[in-house]
Amino acid sequence: MAEECCVDTVCEGCPVLLYIDERRRFIFRVRRGGTTGSDRGVLRHDDVIGLRYGSWVKLSSGIKALVMRPRLVDYMERGLRRKTQVIYPKDHGFIAMLLDLKPGMRILEIGVGSGFTTAFLAQIVGEQGHVYGYEKRRDNLEIAKKNLEKLGLLERVTLKHRDAREGIDEKNIDAAVIDMPDPWAVLRHLHEALRPSAGVVFFLPAANQVQRLLLSMRLRGGWGNIGVYEVLVRSYEPFGDAFRPQTTMIAHTGYLVHAVRVEPMDQYR
Amino acid sequence: MAEECCVDTVCEGCPVLLYIDERRRFIFRVRRGGTTGSDRGVLRHDDVIGLRYGSWVKLSSGIKALVMRPRLVDYMERGLRRKTQVIYPKDHGFIAMLLDLKPGMRILEIGVGSGFTTAFLAQIVGEQGHVYGYEKRRDNLEIAKKNLEKLGLLERVTLKHRDAREGIDEKNIDAAVIDMPDPWAVLRHLHEALRPSAGVVFFLPAANQVQRLLLSMRLRGGWGNIGVYEVLVRSYEPFGDAFRPQTTMIAHTGYLVHAVRVEPMDQYR
Amino acid sequence: MAEECCVDTVCEGCPVLLYIDERRRFIFRVRRGGTTGSDRGVLRHDDVIGLRYGSWVKLSSGIKALVMRPRLVDYMERGLRRKTQVIYPKDHGFIAMLLDLKPGMRILEIGVGSGFTTAFLAQIVGEQGHVYGYEKRRDNLEIAKKNLEKLGLLERVTLKHRDAREGIDEKNIDAAVIDMPDPWAVLRHLHEALRPSAGVVFFLPAANQVQRLLLSMRLRGGWGNIGVYEVLVRSYEPFGDAFRPQTTMIAHTGYLVHAVRVEPMDQYR
Amino acid sequence: MAEECCVDTVCEGCPVLLYIDERRRFIFRVRRGGTTGSDRGVLRHDDVIGLRYGSWVKLSSGIKALVMRPRLVDYMERGLRRKTQVIYPKDHGFIAMLLDLKPGMRILEIGVGSGFTTAFLAQIVGEQGHVYGYEKRRDNLEIAKKNLEKLGLLERVTLKHRDAREGIDEKNIDAAVIDMPDPWAVLRHLHEALRPSAGVVFFLPAANQVQRLLLSMRLRGGWGNIGVYEVLVRSYEPFGDAFRPQTTMIAHTGYLVHAVRVEPMDQYR
Repeated sequence: MAEECCVDTVCEGCPVLLYIDERRRFIFRVRRGGTTGSDRGVLRHDDVIGLRYGSWVKLSSGIKALVMRPRLVDYMERGLRRKTQVIYPKDHGFIAMLLDLKPGMRILEIGVGSGFTTAFLAQIVGEQGHVYGYEKRRDNLEIAKKNLEKLGLLERVTLKHRDAREGIDEKNIDAAVIDMPDPWAVLRHLHEALRPSAGVVFFLPAANQVQRLLLSMRLRGGWGNIGVYEVLVRSYEPFGDAFRPQTTMIAHTGYLVHAVRVEPMDQYR
Repeated sequence: MAEECCVDTVCEGCPVLLYIDERRRFIFRVRRGGTTGSDRGVLRHDDVIGLRYGSWVKLSSGIKALVMRPRLVDYMERGLRRKTQVIYPKDHGFIAMLLDLKPGMRILEIGVGSGFTTAFLAQIVGEQGHVYGYEKRRDNLEIAKKNLEKLGLLERVTLKHRDAREGIDEKNIDAAVIDMPDPWAVLRHLHEALRPSAGVVFFLPAANQVQRLLLSMRLRGGWGNIGVYEVLVRSYEPFGDAFRPQTTMIAHTGYLVHAVRVEPMDQYR
Repeated sequence: MAEECCVDTVCEGCPVLLYIDERRRFIFRVRRGGTTGSDRGVLRHDDVIGLRYGSWVKLSSGIKALVMRPRLVDYMERGLRRKTQVIYPKDHGFIAMLLDLKPGMRILEIGVGSGFTTAFLAQIVGEQGHVYGYEKRRDNLEIAKKNLEKLGLLERVTLKHRDAREGIDEKNIDAAVIDMPDPWAVLRHLHEALRPSAGVVFFLPAANQVQRLLLSMRLRGGWGNIGVYEVLVRSYEPFGDAFRPQTTMIAHTGYLVHAVRVEPMDQYR
Repeated sequence: MAEECCVDTVCEGCPVLLYIDERRRFIFRVRRGGTTGSDRGVLRHDDVIGLRYGSWVKLSSGIKALVMRPRLVDYMERGLRRKTQVIYPKDHGFIAMLLDLKPGMRILEIGVGSGFTTAFLAQIVGEQGHVYGYEKRRDNLEIAKKNLEKLGLLERVTLKHRDAREGIDEKNIDAAVIDMPDPWAVLRHLHEALRPSAGVVFFLPAANQVQRLLLSMRLRGGWGNIGVYEVLVRSYEPFGDAFRPQTTMIAHTGYLVHAVRVEPMDQYR
């Protein structure tokens, strides 16, 4: 089986995660004649062209470093521009389960921000799927666009410079992720945009916001299977001979409120 | 746009999640003339045929219940047979992020058990992807097969009644999930099966197992970007006027050990 | 040094924690001729009289069990009557640190309930200290009184059948623990009862209550060094060869709001 | 009732916690003519002499700050020298519950370090109690001594420059706290030093240490009611209008292993 460029072997233009040690990780695209520097030595890009991913390479200092294929989570940690608060991979993973995400889905996102969640959604729905992203601020939208371009995911995404409070164009959306401070303001439009029984996840940093959203959904009707979750990931020192949790952790990013679009109760009178 | 059977509207043969209240949720396929009973009343299947998902329906008792489209996580909670310990959705979601799962991937699973993780993997890789599942016990394999059939995912899966300690047939695997008590016993075969820079997640309930695996990987070489994680999901009472975490929670399922296949260090001498 | 009755050796009338296995623990007072039964065999009390605490004793079945001195936390787990929601030892311990509890303190408690917190406070302040406990419901008060008697702590406690919303008799209180649903209703009386710079901890199950209390304290003034905490204790299976967290845990009892009595800001104009 | 110096009112020589804002807290003793400076202005000590604790005082900048009585936990946060890793208040509180600490107890501590735990123990056992602290390193012992002096707790403590592996002088100890990397090396001496049914807590950062200790205790015998715990405290932003957990937290300090001294099983043959 032939080795595939940018998947199995490093070619010109391929993305690389250079791993020197836990604190020195760099993501870049390989350019003939290019270099990537650190306080531990410099990598000549020509030295990695033709290598298989997962190979060791020598820096100018003689120190060996690993050349790996960057994952989306690696990009999120250090390969993308981040201007806004972002939703973290720990939350993305759980959102995928809550919304039953699968290839081919058409997904709505309100509050694109730096485009991290857009990228995660676009990657998971695949080439057959699509993401419609609403964002009020043009500067955010520019950053999101660049990030998605860098990841090669832009063609699966329609970015809209638009306030979703004023309306949502799409219909028959399969799932939605809402990251805005006042999501109760889009409940009506959202209900109209979603397919029957489609799910939505709201990301909210403060308990007060969650409470207000829950009350709004109850009063308005039209939402079922409501759940509120918080995802905590505990990292451990990966040393078999002194195994212990890391000393500090991200203790809070936000609450995830999940709901499913249902018919309003009064339909049944 | 025409409404799609089993997605938008309930037809004969479609799966339904009947939600009466938080403790009374039932998953079944709709059969003409069929009924589904509970201590709160009986549902006549004929009453839901033709309804849109998300509709309310009256039980024999007059109580209204919701008719929703079951998600994979709903099936995992109450629609599948479970004979073994299973990996939970909270862990599945994080595994998806760690392994950078996307449509079209070819994935190896060792320790199929009841097939829950197989189902999650098969759903996320889509029709273009494939899952190769190894399982030593024939009785587990039978249950897994039935569960995957029920979910309509069996054709994306190759189930193998085989001990992976004795060898792995596949090559160029994109990612792997290993759920067995002694994963150090398959490290060599696994290394050969994986593509360059492909990731693997090991699921292990006890700290001792994690320690031993970490030591094995270090001694053997060939693994990079190693991390150990534990995912905790906290659920909240979804009531806006008395917002609080639920009283008890699943405090431990297992540790997730992530690693990436790299070349052994000594290649470079 | 002579061995002390009920501390070193088991005498008639001494309390005993009989430990058969993790699920079979019994607390009782030794009576000559008495017995304590379980599905694993019966203990004749006469067999333990004169033994040192920490000894093994044979049940009628031949099974050996441990005879230990019960701690307050053992009583709380299975030796006291519990009619109300109670504050747990995990919270008691952190309350002790927040309030700087030490021997000799005079402590106010509002919401005695079953008297668990009263007992913890009475034990920690010692013979020189005192606890003043307010409780609106006479039936709770009766249970609390019996529990405190059983623990030999009643003489350090003054139980009051009284609604603290109507006033607090004591002055110069060193610290306070408030366990009631609407603590904002006692803030003024509480401020008058506390010594300068004395601390108070409010125990509240729901976030909404915490928010309202925080707003009340801010509006009213007179409270400083405000903090909100939640204590989580993770238990592990105590087996060295398969070390892992227990599968389920108490995920929420309540929030602890700590504040210190200060002069209202406007004193300084 | 007369106001008490250093409790109700600030006199010369009294300790003060000056609270300017969440990040600017200072602990010092009041000296006539003294000053305490910060980037937000300077406090003239003469301005606080005679004030009641909990009063507001003006700094040179015109900014108002609070004058509070420091608690032991305030000292631990910023009023003591810390040379070693220390056990945190969250763990101290739970240790107090596990060991049933009360006034008058005689407590053994192995691994005094900077004396934080010594101080907590000395405060809680009161004037009638006593703490015997073993420490191998003279430099630690000096720091501990200074810290205990500052807190006025030195007279309740006997500090020993001694390796407990070589023996423990005391008998009939009521409870013990062990903070050393290889506690299995003192199990025999510890067993002899403790009273019947007395409890001990071992503080251990790594899972491997816990596992080895558990195995040692099992093999040796003489220990009952064994439990392993981890205490997590989650802090919240204390703002009623945007209530949320703080973004980061201390995720791990150490495991607490609790055991009770019992007779070895074989006594009963």
